[in-house]
Amino acid sequence: MAGNGGYRVRRLGEGTFPSPVEGTYFVGEDTGVLVDATIEGCRNCKGVQPPYLEEAGPRRRLHFDPPRTGVAIVTCGGLCPGLNDVVRALTMVLWHRYGVRRVLGLRYGYEGLVSAFGHPPMILTPDEVADIHQQGGTILGSSRGPQDVRIMTDYLVANGIQVLFTIGGDGTQRGSLDIAQEIERRGLDIAVVGIPKTIDNDILMTDRTFGFETAVAMSRGPIAAAHMEAKGVRNGVGLVRLMGRESGFVAAYASLASSDVNLVLIPEVPFRLDPVLQWLEHRLERKSHAVIVVAEGAGQELVLESGKDASGNRNLGDIGLFMRAAIRSHFAKAEKTANVRYIDPSYTIRSATASADDSVFCFRLAENAVHAAMAGRTGMVVGLWNGRFVNVPIEQAVATRKKVDPGGSFWQSVLNNTGQPAVLA
Amino acid sequence: MAGNGGYRVRRLGEGTFPSPVEGTYFVGEDTGVLVDATIEGCRNCKGVQPPYLEEAGPRRRLHFDPPRTGVAIVTCGGLCPGLNDVVRALTMVLWHRYGVRRVLGLRYGYEGLVSAFGHPPMILTPDEVADIHQQGGTILGSSRGPQDVRIMTDYLVANGIQVLFTIGGDGTQRGSLDIAQEIERRGLDIAVVGIPKTIDNDILMTDRTFGFETAVAMSRGPIAAAHMEAKGVRNGVGLVRLMGRESGFVAAYASLASSDVNLVLIPEVPFRLDPVLQWLEHRLERKSHAVIVVAEGAGQELVLESGKDASGNRNLGDIGLFMRAAIRSHFAKAEKTANVRYIDPSYTIRSATASADDSVFCFRLAENAVHAAMAGRTGMVVGLWNGRFVNVPIEQAVATRKKVDPGGSFWQSVLNNTGQPAVLA
Amino acid sequence: MAGNGGYRVRRLGEGTFPSPVEGTYFVGEDTGVLVDATIEGCRNCKGVQPPYLEEAGPRRRLHFDPPRTGVAIVTCGGLCPGLNDVVRALTMVLWHRYGVRRVLGLRYGYEGLVSAFGHPPMILTPDEVADIHQQGGTILGSSRGPQDVRIMTDYLVANGIQVLFTIGGDGTQRGSLDIAQEIERRGLDIAVVGIPKTIDNDILMTDRTFGFETAVAMSRGPIAAAHMEAKGVRNGVGLVRLMGRESGFVAAYASLASSDVNLVLIPEVPFRLDPVLQWLEHRLERKSHAVIVVAEGAGQELVLESGKDASGNRNLGDIGLFMRAAIRSHFAKAEKTANVRYIDPSYTIRSATASADDSVFCFRLAENAVHAAMAGRTGMVVGLWNGRFVNVPIEQAVATRKKVDPGGSFWQSVLNNTGQPAVLA
Amino acid sequence: MAGNGGYRVRRLGEGTFPSPVEGTYFVGEDTGVLVDATIEGCRNCKGVQPPYLEEAGPRRRLHFDPPRTGVAIVTCGGLCPGLNDVVRALTMVLWHRYGVRRVLGLRYGYEGLVSAFGHPPMILTPDEVADIHQQGGTILGSSRGPQDVRIMTDYLVANGIQVLFTIGGDGTQRGSLDIAQEIERRGLDIAVVGIPKTIDNDILMTDRTFGFETAVAMSRGPIAAAHMEAKGVRNGVGLVRLMGRESGFVAAYASLASSDVNLVLIPEVPFRLDPVLQWLEHRLERKSHAVIVVAEGAGQELVLESGKDASGNRNLGDIGLFMRAAIRSHFAKAEKTANVRYIDPSYTIRSATASADDSVFCFRLAENAVHAAMAGRTGMVVGLWNGRFVNVPIEQAVATRKKVDPGGSFWQSVLNNTGQPAVLA
Repeated sequence: MAGNGGYRVRRLGEGTFPSPVEGTYFVGEDTGVLVDATIEGCRNCKGVQPPYLEEAGPRRRLHFDPPRTGVAIVTCGGLCPGLNDVVRALTMVLWHRYGVRRVLGLRYGYEGLVSAFGHPPMILTPDEVADIHQQGGTILGSSRGPQDVRIMTDYLVANGIQVLFTIGGDGTQRGSLDIAQEIERRGLDIAVVGIPKTIDNDILMTDRTFGFETAVAMSRGPIAAAHMEAKGVRNGVGLVRLMGRESGFVAAYASLASSDVNLVLIPEVPFRLDPVLQWLEHRLERKSHAVIVVAEGAGQELVLESGKDASGNRNLGDIGLFMRAAIRSHFAKAEKTANVRYIDPSYTIRSATASADDSVFCFRLAENAVHAAMAGRTGMVVGLWNGRFVNVPIEQAVATRKKVDPGGSFWQSVLNNTGQPAVLA
Repeated sequence: MAGNGGYRVRRLGEGTFPSPVEGTYFVGEDTGVLVDATIEGCRNCKGVQPPYLEEAGPRRRLHFDPPRTGVAIVTCGGLCPGLNDVVRALTMVLWHRYGVRRVLGLRYGYEGLVSAFGHPPMILTPDEVADIHQQGGTILGSSRGPQDVRIMTDYLVANGIQVLFTIGGDGTQRGSLDIAQEIERRGLDIAVVGIPKTIDNDILMTDRTFGFETAVAMSRGPIAAAHMEAKGVRNGVGLVRLMGRESGFVAAYASLASSDVNLVLIPEVPFRLDPVLQWLEHRLERKSHAVIVVAEGAGQELVLESGKDASGNRNLGDIGLFMRAAIRSHFAKAEKTANVRYIDPSYTIRSATASADDSVFCFRLAENAVHAAMAGRTGMVVGLWNGRFVNVPIEQAVATRKKVDPGGSFWQSVLNNTGQPAVLA
Repeated sequence: MAGNGGYRVRRLGEGTFPSPVEGTYFVGEDTGVLVDATIEGCRNCKGVQPPYLEEAGPRRRLHFDPPRTGVAIVTCGGLCPGLNDVVRALTMVLWHRYGVRRVLGLRYGYEGLVSAFGHPPMILTPDEVADIHQQGGTILGSSRGPQDVRIMTDYLVANGIQVLFTIGGDGTQRGSLDIAQEIERRGLDIAVVGIPKTIDNDILMTDRTFGFETAVAMSRGPIAAAHMEAKGVRNGVGLVRLMGRESGFVAAYASLASSDVNLVLIPEVPFRLDPVLQWLEHRLERKSHAVIVVAEGAGQELVLESGKDASGNRNLGDIGLFMRAAIRSHFAKAEKTANVRYIDPSYTIRSATASADDSVFCFRLAENAVHAAMAGRTGMVVGLWNGRFVNVPIEQAVATRKKVDPGGSFWQSVLNNTGQPAVLA
Repeated sequence: MAGNGGYRVRRLGEGTFPSPVEGTYFVGEDTGVLVDATIEGCRNCKGVQPPYLEEAGPRRRLHFDPPRTGVAIVTCGGLCPGLNDVVRALTMVLWHRYGVRRVLGLRYGYEGLVSAFGHPPMILTPDEVADIHQQGGTILGSSRGPQDVRIMTDYLVANGIQVLFTIGGDGTQRGSLDIAQEIERRGLDIAVVGIPKTIDNDILMTDRTFGFETAVAMSRGPIAAAHMEAKGVRNGVGLVRLMGRESGFVAAYASLASSDVNLVLIPEVPFRLDPVLQWLEHRLERKSHAVIVVAEGAGQELVLESGKDASGNRNLGDIGLFMRAAIRSHFAKAEKTANVRYIDPSYTIRSATASADDSVFCFRLAENAVHAAMAGRTGMVVGLWNGRFVNVPIEQAVATRKKVDPGGSFWQSVLNNTGQPAVLA
């Protein structure tokens, strides 16, 4: 593995083929980006080399010979803006920069690596992928869940694949690692390189993930709608549920981006129902309307403990519907009015085309994934760290989830923007 | 009443004040637009004058003296794109063209005409309304349902209102007619002029209503999302519920506009569940994905008769949720896969800002409403008929609902576009 | 020719083949739409049948046998939103509704009908055109100007074409008529049916043309930009040039749609430079900013008579640049400030994808063009008149240009909206 | 000055007032972000503390007593997306978080600090600024160029201003430094804190500047238009001029974001005309269309040396017009066709509202500017460095310009994306 300590990236072997492109930008074998870029980080490591991530980028010598390299691409899990940008960029860079001529698009996630499903792969060429970034979704199709690692490895061997690109979230990347380890056990010469895909932006060791910014941008419309609906009636409450199972980045960023949200609830900041309802009563008395954003993973303990929702119905399992019921029930009991309008825009957000900035990011992520794989890196994902693209061992990326720090600078910005109470527990 | 037969518009009296604008476009007292512009219509009326609608527009002589005229504006019912455009244009035209200086914006629908609610009106001036068309919703707020006609009429008298503009749907316009009739009973000199507001486009005697085109445009995103979601998994079914309680114009137009819809269900075209599910099975076998659009009022008899939904749960009262459950249940029983993604974008659509074309339409509707009221017309709404703005007695506008004709040219276009079976019953 | 007087549409002969679709909507042979739908029109024609246009739509009997019919489609002139929608819809309706299996897309306008240019045609199938409406421009390419009618007719014969669809403006349609007449002279059985394409909306006998609404919608952004630029500096003047060589519909509608324009200049309303500049001085004194929209054909006599522009430079031949120079020169002489920001968004507007409403319109226009051609109509264009689709002889459509009536209702709306002086001459 | 070496930020004095907000996130006095976050940077500084930037954020103790602090805000130079977001956020954070109650919005750039211009300032309150982020431009107005430093300092004293926020580019920030130094000379207790505004993203020591991402996003439409125009005719050349006087970030990012650009020319990469024209000939022969993006500052030496443009006309001083003329002239001489469509969308881009991501960035920049000023920092700008907000001495920010590195990773991505030759000189 390249890099230091736990940040070393696995390598299949030394580079034996020259890069087909001459005289341009290449990355040396020992450049890296500090894990901690604060002065404190530097102070603590006096005398000892501080931990760093291998810098991503093209190497002068390749492990695979491009014209004889078979490549497969697979997209897994839920939709995310930019999937087609990544598939397109992988194909384009493989083809034009490296001269690879055999790129397969496996269908419907890891099912595409299991012959029994009978999904024939797509043949990807520059012509085939030229315009796919102009539509959302994934032209390859996707599916959830793992498949048998041995069967998938058999598939790679049987189909002459030397490089597998997996585009998916932490579950997918754990699957990638399993495949890489099975490959190692069998002594095969196949690279597995992941491009982390999480619209929630909750993967470690990368400043952002593709699709996240687009999701934030696409959340603006529904939040504006909630705002208009709330102001359009007396005591209107616009309630929007956004993505974020374990991390509230989308909800919090989208609230900051719209500046019309009065309360945002995220998984990282626990709350109790009573103070929220009291805050809402107070808000409606003063302003006659309110806008609330909830991340889908917020307050799950409330939903669970209720067993039933606030109206006495069975558990809804959905914090948005739970909050709608709780508000209605509370105000009905108090003989007050709250006109709740509930919006759940998730499908519309995640199937959107990538924003301009995400398109650039997707292209560069894909480029660096290709560089890494052609240079023989494996069991890794590409990321962005302190402004540079890096190669990250999968173990580091999926060790735990990236979370909003309730005591940090970003959440403080959210509190300053919404004006909501810091504590609702 | 001006105009012929049932199309004659009520008048408060003759015009006694000269229009403050000289030398420009005016409409004569006896111009009109044929109700039936086909050659058949003309053939049938040989010798007899065929029915026509009074042409809308500025008259040379006014019934009200602008500087002494108090005006009130009220918005009622659900949100609709363009409400603020209409409020803005009414204010601007009253102020700049006619010199009216007292324009009240009544708050929260007909509640604003009932003192007991205690909603003080807004004072509307050009400065106040200058930018309101750039946001959705209504700056006046809205509410549903009627209020006591006598109390509302008392309010007009007590507040020195000579002209009331009501922006609302058929219920609102029936209320307007009640007020106009109460005014007539009391012998008051107050005009009540409506601007029909129905995002469903289901009011008679007007080719279109404001907000409808915007709703169609705003439906494209959710339909595209459904399409991407459907193609992103094996046997994906994108299911979108759109507006349309009694008339399927939004659903049908939006389907035509996107050209990605495979089946659209509207209230005017009855269907049975079995043929729909068989069609879907067949479609998924051939294409592996499908996009279905349902108007909210489609198949209500199915929802009602089921008592329970297809899974044996209690009645959902929502055709979208009903269809989702029915599809899931059917495919589960058949041991087949259908991955349904359900999108209900209603709030996001109806709270949007008006499209360019709707903004133009709102301005011209409002202009003509002002012209009509200042000339002493009452108990009427403004409309667009055969390309010209017209004054329509409220009775004609709300006699029944405008519907999609399943045997007509437009529905045939939908069938040609979606390729769906003409009969699913 | 079907229809009455000059409105009769040419026919190749009677229908001899049954329509392949049974039991649906069909139009009778003698239905029509009144040319004049006002009551005045009806009064004038007492006893005599008033002029009417043949209603468009599917006929029960066809002139051409679909499986043996070769069809060609050509797009001519400048880009216009919706071109690909029309090409797509023609192909889809020909294929799915009628069973035509040979549809050629001729390349680069009328050049595609001239073998010497060597542009091989595209083979159009439903798969080929499925997604083309999602991009602007024309997949067929286009060119300006006529080609030799005999050579083009030879091409149709040589390539087994029975139906030619021409999508283009008045010049193109005059060319279509020439081809239809040459076909008639030679006694050939070939239909030529046009879909009028003019972003300026200046063709007669149709209420609107496709792309026009999109152009209006796309003009909003540049006008808003001009507004922001004008307000961002002292005495800022935002100047926007929009389409409209002979008719000012785009400029006038776009101004109405934005409600931020203070002066709109169109070809139909002559003006002199001095009163415009005096108006501007006065406006800047009061408000410190102004937004002016000019149609490209406005004030051409000023540009021509100047010989030189206001700064003494050579004639710019462009009213936008002319006005910019005139304003700068005038304020410089008067030792006053006017910070002019000039925006010419034409290419960005005309290459846009069609708006939702235009997409619907394109589909229905194309549908009706197919219906007309299959029923043997020729030398005609499809249009929309008084809310119904109609077949219009080319001579009627191109007899003169549709213009904004400076004494009519629409221009009065513009004056009411902008507040500009009615007379600037 | 806080911080080390040249990165130390000036301070007016120690904090004497407690922060009005308790128990939340605060930044310590000695936290910082490494200037160089690579492992090489760390290796080189063994034993010595490496250079770092002071971390931005709220301090526990303030230099100014909020209720007695007068604040002024000024926007200078050309429009940039996000100006109103910054003005709004400064006002909101001053008011709600700190309790400042006197915030003046100075009009028309530095002119607003010169009494002789007679521009009365706006009084900024939360109500006044609540919705301003929904429009582009700047509600304060702007102007270019410096004013007399002594007169501006007099203005601050005379109007009881303790904190001046300057939103502007490098010229503006040099002016800010002059004011800060004049304040120091006079021994006044006034802080001057800048928020760097450059749509070109060319200021040092900040990873990005606000408005840049929006500019990239807004460039997509014009590039797509150029693409459609180019494909719509034979040998079509879409030519788009984008912002970038000295640095090509907008042009290069926008090209990457669209993936439809075949050649992008920026100031940092010199080129000669002949190889560009030969490349274009070759491209048109193969593909029949091309899309070229030029940054406004690209190839200025060519424009200058030509004296005349390629057609023999006088120097156009505009690389876009120069390239258009050069292409036309070259192809005319070669008796070949190139149909050039030239688009200059600058005003439409820079006057746009901020994208979602830029809105978040604007809020956080403004927040940190307020934190810095209230804690007594002066002569500095806020920036983002290695993912953290930092306080940067103005000298460091404007020392030179940030440029695209032609030998670096980003430009390599552009070459990989466009496929253009690395060398055209």
